[in-house]
Amino acid sequence: MEINMNKIYIVGMGPGFESMMTKQAIDALEASDVIVGYTVYIKLLGEKFQTKELLTTPMRQEKERCHLCFKKALEGKTVSLVCSGDAGIYGLASLMYEIGQEYDNVELSVIPGITAANSGAAVLGAPLNHDFCTISLSDLLTPWDKIEKRLVAAAEGDFVIALYNPSSHKRKDYLMRACDILLRAIEPDRACGYVENIGREGTSYTVCTLGELRSAQVNMFTTVFIGNEGTQIIDGMLVTRRGYQIE
Amino acid sequence: MEINMNKIYIVGMGPGFESMMTKQAIDALEASDVIVGYTVYIKLLGEKFQTKELLTTPMRQEKERCHLCFKKALEGKTVSLVCSGDAGIYGLASLMYEIGQEYDNVELSVIPGITAANSGAAVLGAPLNHDFCTISLSDLLTPWDKIEKRLVAAAEGDFVIALYNPSSHKRKDYLMRACDILLRAIEPDRACGYVENIGREGTSYTVCTLGELRSAQVNMFTTVFIGNEGTQIIDGMLVTRRGYQIE
Ligand SMILES: C[S@@+](CC[C@H](N)C(=O)[O-])C[C@H]1O[C@@H](n2cnc3c(N)ncnc32)[C@H](O)[C@@H]1O
Ligand SMILES: C[S@@+](CC[C@H](N)C(=O)[O-])C[C@H]1O[C@@H](n2cnc3c(N)ncnc32)[C@H](O)[C@@H]1O
Repeated sequence: MEINMNKIYIVGMGPGFESMMTKQAIDALEASDVIVGYTVYIKLLGEKFQTKELLTTPMRQEKERCHLCFKKALEGKTVSLVCSGDAGIYGLASLMYEIGQEYDNVELSVIPGITAANSGAAVLGAPLNHDFCTISLSDLLTPWDKIEKRLVAAAEGDFVIALYNPSSHKRKDYLMRACDILLRAIEPDRACGYVENIGREGTSYTVCTLGELRSAQVNMFTTVFIGNEGTQIIDGMLVTRRGYQIE
Repeated sequence: MEINMNKIYIVGMGPGFESMMTKQAIDALEASDVIVGYTVYIKLLGEKFQTKELLTTPMRQEKERCHLCFKKALEGKTVSLVCSGDAGIYGLASLMYEIGQEYDNVELSVIPGITAANSGAAVLGAPLNHDFCTISLSDLLTPWDKIEKRLVAAAEGDFVIALYNPSSHKRKDYLMRACDILLRAIEPDRACGYVENIGREGTSYTVCTLGELRSAQVNMFTTVFIGNEGTQIIDGMLVTRRGYQIE
């Protein structure tokens, strides 16, 4: 007997505008009967997708959202779970694999998207043009001492740093706390920057020093960049040298 | 007098297939009179672009390639410089900003692309689903002791690691050397993986342990992933937990 595998695409939508999705991602949505996602992202989708079965769940109910995908797939439907940016970067991809252990005959396929580090870097110039790391300042799933340890290690290794989730209602001072940790190892005039609403209406960016970043106004739609030793501001853009050119 | 700004797009092509480019990237190429790039990438472009003025330069002549873009732009042409993946990740974006200081009236615009860390992660499952870093093992522009320092810091911070440029003709044993450094701090059965020819004909991937990775056959079209403490192999895929869920 042949078993028909039910298919779930875990789709990275990029930062916002449909023009920043890949064709592969758009094809996956078009091939789907059901699109599952957080309300905001479903609304960002173009009109042509509004004929699909669209299932939105509130922000925090992430496990429910994953189970919903598997249930729909087992009904024989092709399902897309949409996430902003890349679903494998602080997104639901890994939770889908974990929960998938409870279901048989469902095939998962991750469609990569442009993550905020990359789309934000493009707005600022070229801040990530050497070894870099991403750190999320959200301590919902990660204890703060682990976050602190990573900030220290990132400074120690002279990585460029992209900070996700720099702020939320409950964690207004987290960026300041992170800067204070970094300032123990990094000079206050280190070149930094941040971008709000990447790939959406109202994109704005700021280039500043680490000392200034400490009191920057950021929100949950901001991605923050901290340069390495070789990062400079060129014509108002944040640029990290590719290497240690000796010329 | 109004000054007409000449435009250069610095375009990330994604890993290979046109379906993994964003619409924004395709639009930039379509809007260009001239497309500049390394021969291999120019060849990957679809037929519709073959009517453009296509300028290829050999691999190492990167500065020449950048100057060529500015010269063509100053002739009044709209230019796209194409790079694989994201032009701001081990690509030419920052060199363009540096060289751009020598030219007036040229506007640079970076169009982000899917970088190998993200496209490779999608092939393996979800290895980057928590704080991660990228490290290039190429010591053409970076002294090896700096690379070694970053490997140590990455292990110290329990980052997932994506290794770019794990091997080349002259550096056949670099992945082994990197693994030996990591093995001082990380247990040999840490979950790892690598992907070759992402988004191109002949994509293949392997999931293994750090001990096995030490003697893996990799080449210049391979991206390597080293898990963190929370990375597991689920159904043959490499999956990093999003956090330290306490349940
Ligand atoms: C839970 S993470 C999701 C990341 C997403 N999966 C990605 O790959 O971009 C949310 C954080 O990503 C960053 N982010 C996501 N989309 C953004 C956008 N359009 N503009 C600025 N930052 C964004 C912000 O730092 C935000 O707090
Ligand atoms: C000079 S870097 C360029 C990276 C590129 N700008 C990006 O964002 O993906 C070259 C390295 O990137 C990785 N890479 C780039 N394209 C790849 C592909 N299609 N498959 C596997 N690895 C790739 C490999 O590690 C390779 O040695």
